Amino acid sequence: MSQPLPADQPAPRGGNGRSGRAPYDLATVLDIAVAAFNEFGYDATSMGTLAERLGTSKSAIYYHVSGKADLLRLALERGLGELEGVLSLPGAQEGPADARLEFVLRGAVRVLCEELPSVTLLLRLRGNTDLEREALARRREFDHAVAALVDESRADGTLRADVDARTTTRLIFGMINSIVEWYKPGGPLTPEQLADDVITVAFEGLHPRPSA
Amino acid sequence: MSQPLPADQPAPRGGNGRSGRAPYDLATVLDIAVAAFNEFGYDATSMGTLAERLGTSKSAIYYHVSGKADLLRLALERGLGELEGVLSLPGAQEGPADARLEFVLRGAVRVLCEELPSVTLLLRLRGNTDLEREALARRREFDHAVAALVDESRADGTLRADVDARTTTRLIFGMINSIVEWYKPGGPLTPEQLADDVITVAFEGLHPRPSA
Repeated sequence: MSQPLPADQPAPRGGNGRSGRAPYDLATVLDIAVAAFNEFGYDATSMGTLAERLGTSKSAIYYHVSGKADLLRLALERGLGELEGVLSLPGAQEGPADARLEFVLRGAVRVLCEELPSVTLLLRLRGNTDLEREALARRREFDHAVAALVDESRADGTLRADVDARTTTRLIFGMINSIVEWYKPGGPLTPEQLADDVITVAFEGLHPRPSA
Repeated sequence: MSQPLPADQPAPRGGNGRSGRAPYDLATVLDIAVAAFNEFGYDATSMGTLAERLGTSKSAIYYHVSGKADLLRLALERGLGELEGVLSLPGAQEGPADARLEFVLRGAVRVLCEELPSVTLLLRLRGNTDLEREALARRREFDHAVAALVDESRADGTLRADVDARTTTRLIFGMINSIVEWYKPGGPLTPEQLADDVITVAFEGLHPRPSA
C-alpha cells in the first residue's frame, strides 16, 4: 500500500467491439468501482454489480485486480498518491512557510477537484479494515504536513497566532474537504479559480482589507 | 414535521430502580437512538438494538414513540429546531447585515457543539425517505437564510466581493459543518471560544491584519 501504483495503464479504453480478455482498461474499471463505492458504500457493492455496470463479466474485472479490496486500494491510491505528490513538489519545499502552506493548500484543492471520486471515498472511510486504516494513516500524514506548515508560519509571524494552531488546521481542512460535497467537475468554476477563492477566504478573510 | 416538538418531557431521567411503563424518559431514549444511528446508520439500527442499549424492553421505547421513524424525526428536530431558533433571535434580525451574519454563524457553531449528535445525523442524511428529505429541506432553508445575509453584506460592502457569493457561503458552511467531525464536547475548547475562532478565521483571515 505504501508503494504508489499507477491507476492508469497502457490498455485500450472502452470495450467498443474489441474482443479479448480485457474489454475495459483498469482506469475505466476503477472509475466505475469508485462511483459505485461512493453511491452504495463499499460493503454493499459486489463484483457482480460492478460487472453489470461495466456491461461485462466478472472475469473481465478479475483480469485487472484480485478482488474488491484490490479495487478499493487502487481507487484510494489515486487521491492519496496525488496528495502526497503535492508535498514533494518544489513549491512545497522551498521558500517562506506561508508560501509553502499556500502552495500545498492550492495543490490539495486541485487534487480534490481532479480526483473528486477517489478523495470522496477517502474522506468517507471509517477505518473498518487494515486497508482502510492504512489509507487513513496516510491521509493523517498529509494533514500533519499541513499542520507543520501552519506551525512554522505562526512562528514566522506570517499567520495569526490568536487562533489555536490545531483549530486553525482543522478549520482550513473543513473548508477544503467540504468541496467534495458540492463541486461539479467541468462546470464554470475551475479548480484554479476555486483554489484562488479558498486561499483568499482562508488567508485574507471575508471582511475587505484596507487597500495596501 | 414543520411543528417543532419538545425533545425533553417532564418525565424522570434514568431507570434506577423505578418501576412502571417508562423507566427512561424520552430525552434519554433519544440520546441512545441518535448515538446508535450515528454509529451503525439508521437502517442498520433496530428497535431491539436500542432496547438492548437502554437495558430495557422495546415496549418501554414504544411508550414514547410510534417507531424508529418517529425517533429519527425527534432526533433531527433537536438540531434543526435549535438552528431555526437562531434565525428568530433579535441578533439575527436587527443591525447591519454583516453583524447579523456573524451572529447567525456564532449561533450555528453553538448549536453544532451543543446538539452535536443530532446535527451529525442531520449532516449525514442522504434523503432516502420523505422524512429525510423534509429535514434536508429545512436545513437548506437555514443555508439560504445565511446565503441571503452573505448577499446583503456584499451589497453593503462589508464583505469582500471578489469571491463568488455561493462559493463564499459554501466555504463558510464547510468550515462550520466540519466541526462535527472533531469537536469533543466538555473538552478545553468551549463552544464560545470555537465560535470566536471560526469568526476570526472566516472574517479576518489567517494573515495578520495591519493593526487598526
